[in-house]
Formats: sequence, structure tokens, C-alpha cells
Amino acid sequence: MAAKQTAKLKIIPLGGLGEIGKNMTVLEYGNDMIVIDCGLAFPDEDMLGVDMVIPDMTYIEANRDKLRAFIITHGHEDHIGSLPFALQRVSAPIYGTRFTLALIEHKLEEYGIINAELNCMASGDSVQLGCFGVEFIKVNHSIAGAVALAVTTPLGVVIHTGDFKVDYTPVNDEPIDINRFAAYGANGVLALLMDSTNAEAEGSTPSEKEIGKTFEKVFSEAQGRIIVASFASNVYRIQQVVDTAVRHNRVVCFQGRSMVNIVGIASELGYLNLPENCVVELEQLRSYENSKVCVLTTGSQGESMSGLFRMANANHRLSVGKGDTVIISASAIPGNERSVGRVINRLFQRGANVIYDRLADVHVSGHARRQELRMMFNLLKPKYFIPVHGETRHLYRHAGLAGQMGIDEGRIFVMYNGNVLEISQKEAKISGGVSSGSLLVDGLGVGDVGASVLRERRLLSQAGIFSVMIPLNSTTGELAGTPEIVTKGFIYLNDSQELIDEVRSQVYAIASERVVKPNKEDRQELIAAVKSSVKQLLMERTRRTPIIIPVVLEIDI
Amino acid sequence: MAAKQTAKLKIIPLGGLGEIGKNMTVLEYGNDMIVIDCGLAFPDEDMLGVDMVIPDMTYIEANRDKLRAFIITHGHEDHIGSLPFALQRVSAPIYGTRFTLALIEHKLEEYGIINAELNCMASGDSVQLGCFGVEFIKVNHSIAGAVALAVTTPLGVVIHTGDFKVDYTPVNDEPIDINRFAAYGANGVLALLMDSTNAEAEGSTPSEKEIGKTFEKVFSEAQGRIIVASFASNVYRIQQVVDTAVRHNRVVCFQGRSMVNIVGIASELGYLNLPENCVVELEQLRSYENSKVCVLTTGSQGESMSGLFRMANANHRLSVGKGDTVIISASAIPGNERSVGRVINRLFQRGANVIYDRLADVHVSGHARRQELRMMFNLLKPKYFIPVHGETRHLYRHAGLAGQMGIDEGRIFVMYNGNVLEISQKEAKISGGVSSGSLLVDGLGVGDVGASVLRERRLLSQAGIFSVMIPLNSTTGELAGTPEIVTKGFIYLNDSQELIDEVRSQVYAIASERVVKPNKEDRQELIAAVKSSVKQLLMERTRRTPIIIPVVLEIDI
Repeated sequence: MAAKQTAKLKIIPLGGLGEIGKNMTVLEYGNDMIVIDCGLAFPDEDMLGVDMVIPDMTYIEANRDKLRAFIITHGHEDHIGSLPFALQRVSAPIYGTRFTLALIEHKLEEYGIINAELNCMASGDSVQLGCFGVEFIKVNHSIAGAVALAVTTPLGVVIHTGDFKVDYTPVNDEPIDINRFAAYGANGVLALLMDSTNAEAEGSTPSEKEIGKTFEKVFSEAQGRIIVASFASNVYRIQQVVDTAVRHNRVVCFQGRSMVNIVGIASELGYLNLPENCVVELEQLRSYENSKVCVLTTGSQGESMSGLFRMANANHRLSVGKGDTVIISASAIPGNERSVGRVINRLFQRGANVIYDRLADVHVSGHARRQELRMMFNLLKPKYFIPVHGETRHLYRHAGLAGQMGIDEGRIFVMYNGNVLEISQKEAKISGGVSSGSLLVDGLGVGDVGASVLRERRLLSQAGIFSVMIPLNSTTGELAGTPEIVTKGFIYLNDSQELIDEVRSQVYAIASERVVKPNKEDRQELIAAVKSSVKQLLMERTRRTPIIIPVVLEIDI
Repeated sequence: MAAKQTAKLKIIPLGGLGEIGKNMTVLEYGNDMIVIDCGLAFPDEDMLGVDMVIPDMTYIEANRDKLRAFIITHGHEDHIGSLPFALQRVSAPIYGTRFTLALIEHKLEEYGIINAELNCMASGDSVQLGCFGVEFIKVNHSIAGAVALAVTTPLGVVIHTGDFKVDYTPVNDEPIDINRFAAYGANGVLALLMDSTNAEAEGSTPSEKEIGKTFEKVFSEAQGRIIVASFASNVYRIQQVVDTAVRHNRVVCFQGRSMVNIVGIASELGYLNLPENCVVELEQLRSYENSKVCVLTTGSQGESMSGLFRMANANHRLSVGKGDTVIISASAIPGNERSVGRVINRLFQRGANVIYDRLADVHVSGHARRQELRMMFNLLKPKYFIPVHGETRHLYRHAGLAGQMGIDEGRIFVMYNGNVLEISQKEAKISGGVSSGSLLVDGLGVGDVGASVLRERRLLSQAGIFSVMIPLNSTTGELAGTPEIVTKGFIYLNDSQELIDEVRSQVYAIASERVVKPNKEDRQELIAAVKSSVKQLLMERTRRTPIIIPVVLEIDI
């Protein structure tokens, strides 16, 4: 225990800072380490072909002996999505609330991981993990079972809000436990890590209940079927739709794989109240009048192959058309604006009445705005503040707010992934850094697609590939056949035979006018000559720059 | 003239309906045809490598004898950008206001088109073009010189609003000429084609003047340099920034190619008042204190290589940092959200204070909202209504508003590019269609990149290419050398030599175990066998699906 007096508390974000996604934060003191959240990020538009992005976990692997637990604040992908990859590298128990664990279990099953140790915690529960005492505190968010964490360390209490909002009138849920935050605040908080997602937005995020009014209005007016697209994990939203449907004597049909899965889990665990006989299968819908039907589906982000996408594109057994009302109860996540817009366009074109966030209050955020953040600063009065969960601009706006709320500039740390904040009894400072970054997952590969492969994919996507194969007699170095040309993604070939022939004869001329000795230098020279001459010709004729690959095949004759 | 009694008025949109971009509308009666606007669209994110998109002009080419003029409502790219391509196909005079023509002239010069006939019109001017009398009516928009058109046809007046908003307190400009609209309305309007861009938004678009308050506040508070990014063509915005800078004793420096170009044109033509001595070059800035400097730059959309982008990435002589205030006086065009966000993040990271649309009123739209559209319906009381300039959802929302404003549903036409609306004295109906669509411009090629090439580029971008070259003795059909493998964008090669070797020996086995006769069938069979076996192997090892191209090279031995 002597070590405790001199050791420093380290706070090390490995993901989620300077980005929305792959949240992961390490707390370390002496021989103990806990990891808060273990999320994935969806690839940027320039990460071509990449399936997902996970944090670099080198630091955790290197300190596996210290690792006491993964603590998960809630079940969104950007908080749980990297767990399968983490558990393939290190082993540690996972702590979370019931709904969070149910989603984790489901995910681990998909990856064939069956021996994980899952420990169920309720809001208000605490657990001792090495030198860290961790209490789960109820918060509101757009998913059930979201919590903040109060971590009692040898140097003081660290509060991590997780993703949260303040909802005094939640649906089928309790409000955030501000009393617990107040209690911690009264006893002194060493450091606060707080959700920055909405740090740009003034005021308070409206209550989930607010959009119930919109649902009520739409359900009162709609004559035909009502189709609602939402996130499957937002069980509060689902509950509101179900309640409204039942009030208006409509049956409910769930569509989309994740909707069906998560609704199943949520209702089994009691997070969702589905009155008897209100849920029907797609096949049964035809026996109900349109005015008695409500469909809840995935696809609020315009994802191709989602329920709503297929309905909008007449590729679903449920064909949406004239008389139907479609509510898109979500807002587009940055980057998805165009795909959502396209689905809305298709739905209008099919004759549906579409209601979306530009037209009515059909969505509220799950993240606190500035007025709610101010309340937390007031309740907690932390010594040190670290804005988390946000792009750089969110972090800076949040840091600015902290300054306005009276926290010394020198105690506010805008950190990035891999930074190490060392807190001693005397001071806190960012000191050095650890390995961090993005591992790209593509198919089975983790990390084998990096900058160079992405660069090639980008070039290929812009102008395709133009490959020239040159067979050479390996003894004499003379041409041993006609050069072949293969191109993809460059030009419409049927109309370009002339250009291809021109390139071929140019290559033929270059290759036949020189005798290439069976050494590397000669071959490289030939390849360089072909490449530059083909490049120039294609540029002149088309103003395009495909990747040009001359290949010399040596033929033993 | 007898024909006029029986001929029908045709309204044919060739672009701009069901999309924001490449606006182009044909009006045709008897032997006369005019084309309103001739714009380009920027490529969707799935149009990989494409530079721009222009309308299919087959119909105009086929009717070149009837073509009397191109009438351009204003100088934005989505209204003038296809003129160079149109003038390469057909010849006709161009009519527009002074600023519009100046921008067109500049564009045509870039394409080396020098003999175009440009006819300058002022608001209130009219011109007779065949049977069409065209009056230019002043409107407000986010560019100088924007007009609506009143086209008097043998069957009645067609009003095309162009892009417009209603601004009673414009900056350095006159308000929209609602009296002229009223006069046309009083005499009866046959058909109205109206801007649908903001048909989703209730209320009225704020006046350009409103954001002057924000500029004033920021300029009063900022201590260091002020850098404003905006669209170069929004001379009203530029004027406000310049006026505010001068009031606060700051000199102004213009950065970015299009900013410098357009400011030059606008001030030469008197659209922009630049007080003497207020404009300085970049080199001179060092002789001014930071508090005396204002920079106006391009890059409000986060475009790479724009002024602001380079400043944010420390790739500009003007290095933005601590103490600087950056105003992004624009909102992100759909699809640009991420690139704008990234620039904001970089600027914060460099220590700048960044002010953008989520934080303050730094931008107003140039398009009318529903309350303004209602006024136009009221002024004009058209017999027929065609919503234009919008994605499908905008068109439908606009059509819905028209219904609420008392226009019979049967007289409202939601049209798409290529539809033909035929109006006779008795009725109007959509009858048939003409060739229409998108021509993709890629380098020098117009239309030689289509669905199949884009599909290849998309596949290449997802997993790259895996090419296998198999040299065969053309006489015996036996392998004449080692198969070569070339891959790009598939996997990081240095770490994958084992996989490549495995593929090579598999291909070797397949090719050597069969004798391929010098006929097409045998070769095709070999290619198919190699392709399927390589595909399967790569799938098993990597779960990826590059484009696999086996190539057989026949070697004459």
C-alpha cells in the first residue's frame, strides 16, 4: 500500500477524443488498470472498403497484468463494438448494466466468443477493482441502461459521465440521478470526464417525451399505414411508438434484423412493454386494414439493405406507397445526410407522406447541451476537467464552457487519443504519450490495410487501373509475344479500342527497340520507359491518370 | 401565324428536377425554342473520379434550328456550368445580366470559347425571341444580378422564378421587384415554375442584413486577425465583411483563386465597393498589426486546396493560430458536412477561435422559404404550377404547399428531367418524354464513363485488384514461365508474401495440369478455373473480394 502514496493516477484516452467513435479510456494507478468503454468507429468516407475502425490496444496488451476490468457505460457500438477484438488480445471481466450486457453477449456470440465474464450491475451498485471503487450512476441517453461512472481512486474521485442527457420526464424510465452527482460534488471531485457531443448547442436537449406529441398528432391524422424508422436500441422511442399505436388501435410489426433482435432482448428483459396481441408478423398484416397497422423498422440512416431502404426501393414484401405515412424518427449522423435524403426522395416518389426532422419534431438527441453541461459543472465542481467524446471542435467548445464555469484554464485538459494525463496529489499534466491510433478492420484482417493500401484504393477509384503485360524471352531479352493490356475502371472499353491499340503498338515499339538483358536494371528501365510513355499518351488522350502497371513476364524458351 | 393557334406550349426540364444541380429547362412553341439556364452538377459520392455532371442535351441538338437563345437567370455553376459543353454542340445567343455574363465570359475563356454572342440585359429589360417575349425581373439571391423571367408565349405568360428569396433589406442591392410580379399576376399567369430549394422550411429566410450584426459583434470583440471564408460569388456577403472591416480600421486581403477573380470582376463592374487603400496584398500584411487585418478567403466548404483548407493545414503563407478569429460564413452544402467539420477541427486545434453556423448567425440562405413561396402564389395566382430546382422531397413539399394555396391538384405537375408538359388552350398534361439524364465529365471525356466503369471503380475502391498473369506456349498450350501476380489496393504486400506465394503455386498447379489448346474455349476455361480458385482462396484467407483478373499471354516459341 506504500506505493499508493507516491504513485500517480494516469488517465489515458485510447479512442473517442478528436472523433465521435471508438470510445476507450484507461485509468491506471500503481498496479491497477481499468478500461472504460471499448467501442468501434465507422470508417470515414476515405477509408475505402474498410468495415470498421478499432482503437490501437497496444498499451492495454502491454499492461495486461494490471488490467482489472472493462467497464461499459452503455450498449452503443461506439462503446462496445471493439470488445470482441479486445477479448481476443487480453482477458478481463466486463461490467455493465443488464441491457448493456445483453447487447454485449449478443455481439460476442456473433464473434464466437463464449467464455467472457459478464458482471451485471444496477445503477447505484459499486464494485472494487484493485484500488478503484466504481459506482454506476443512472443517466438518461438514447439507449436503455446508460450510466455514468464515479471512480474512487487513491487520489480522489474521477467522474466519467458516459453519454448522457438530463431528462426529467423520460419515457418508461427514471430521470438521471442528480442526487448522486450532488453527493460526489459535495465531497469533492478530482477530475471530470464529460460527454462533449452537443457542446456546440445552447440550451437543453428536449425530453424524449416531447416527440410523443408529434407521434400523437401523426397517428391521429394518418388514414393509411404508419411506418416508423428508428434506431433499434432506442427502446424509449420504440416504447412511445408502440404506446401510441396501441392507443390508436393499430397493431405493431417489427422489421429489420437489428430491430427484431433488440426488441426481443429488450422486451425479454423488461425494458420494453409490449401489450399482449399488439405485435404481429409481416404475414399477418394483410388481415388488418391499413388504418390499423404500424410498422417499426430499421433504416433511419438510409442504410442500404435496411428495412426502410428496401421498402423505399420496392425491394421489400411491404411495398410502401400512396396513403402510407412514413416517420423517420432520427436525424442523420454526419456523413449519412445524402443516403437519408435519397430514401426520403424515393418514399415521396412512391407517393408516401414522409415526416422527418426538417418538417416536425420527430427526434431528440441523447446528448446534453450546454445548459445541462453547466448543471454538471455546478454539481460536481471538479478540480480537473477533460472533455471527452467529441471531435476537436466539440472538445474546444466544451473546454471553453468549463472556463466560463470557473475552472482554471490550467486545470482544463484538451486531450487526444494516446495522451497521458498524470495526476499527482500536487498537480496534473499531460506527459508523453502511448501508442494509439486507428486499426482498420477489413474482412478478416485487422491492421493489414493501412495508408498505402488506402492510397491505392483511392487512386483506383478515381481513374482505375491500366495494366500492360510484356512477355520477354528470358535468354535473349527479346519480345516473346504481343503485349497484353488489361484495364478496369478507366474508360468504356468498347468505345476505346482505338486508344488501346495505340497504346499497344507504342509499347511494342518501346519493347522491341531495346534488348533487355536478364538483369534487374534493364527490366526496371524497360518498365519505367513503358510507364512514362503510356502515362503521357493516356494523359494527352483522356486527361486521366489511372494507375499504370507494366509487368514483364520472363519466358524460358 | 396560323400554327400558333393550334400549336402547344411545351415545357421540358432537362435538369434540376429531382436534384439540386444542372438546371436546364426548355420552352418550345411551334418553331421556337428557348433554353432557361445551362448548369452543371457536382458528382455524387458514388460517381468516383468524375469531375462534373452535365445534362443530356440530345433534345436541344435535335432541335437546333428552333433554338433562339440561352437565357441565364444568374451566374452560379448550377446555372451556367454546362454552357461550354452546350456551345460546343449548338450555337445560340446568350442573354443574362451584367454580372452573370461576366462570370460566363470568364468560364468560356477557360474553355477557349471566344465567339459566343453575349447579350446584356438589365432587370426590367425585355427581348423578343421568336414567339417568346422575355422580361428580366429583379429578385434577391446569394449572388449579384439574379433575375426571374416572365416569358410571354402565344398561350399566356410563364413565370420562372430562377433562384430567389425575398429580401426587403438587401445589402448594396435593391429588393425583389414584387410590383412586376403583381402586375403579371393581375393580368393572369399561365404557368409558374418556382424554386423549391427551401420548400421544407417554414417562415421566411432572414435578410442578408441580419448577419451584419454578427460580423459587427465579432469585429468589435476580436483582438487578433479576422479571417472570413465565404463564397466568392456572394458579393453582398463580401461587401458586408469589407464594410465592417473598414469601420473597424482593418485592411482587407483577398485569398483564393476564385475569390480574387470574382472580387476583381465584381468591383470592376461596380457590384462591390472597395474603399480606396482598404485592399492589401498578402505580402503587405506583415506591416499591419494583427488587430488591423481582415482576410477574405475561399474554402467555406472545406474544399481541399482552397485558401482556408491550406491555412488550417499549415500549408499557406498565412499561418492561422492562436489569437486569430475565423468566421465560416456559409453552411455546408449537403455532402460537404464532413470536410467542413474537418477544417473547423483543424482550426480549433491550431488555437484559433472559430465561429460557424452552429454557434452564431453567420449565414443566411439565398432561397425562399414557405412564407415567401406563399407570397408568390398569392401575387401570381398561376393556372398551372411546376415546382423546379429541388430534390424530389422539395418538389413534393412545394407541390403540397401549392395545393394549400388553392391551386387545383390537377394543375400541379411534379415533373422529372425529360418529362414534357404540353399546354394547350384547353388543358395541360405530361405527355411522353425526351432523352434526358446525366452525362459524366471525366477529364476530356464526356459520357465515356458510365455505369459499368463506375461499377468497376467502386469494386476497385472496396478491395482493389488482384491480377494473375499466365504465360502459355501458344503451340503446345503449356506453361511458358512462372505466373506473375500484381495487386493494388488489396492488402499490405510486405506482410502478405506467404499468401501471394500460395496463390501463385495454386495457379501454377491449375495451369500445368491442363494442356490448353490454342482456341478460345480452352483459354476461357483456364481463366475461369483460375478466377474461381483464386477468389475462393482469397475469400477464405481474407474475407475480401478484390477484382480478380487472370490474363493468359500466348507466347510464340
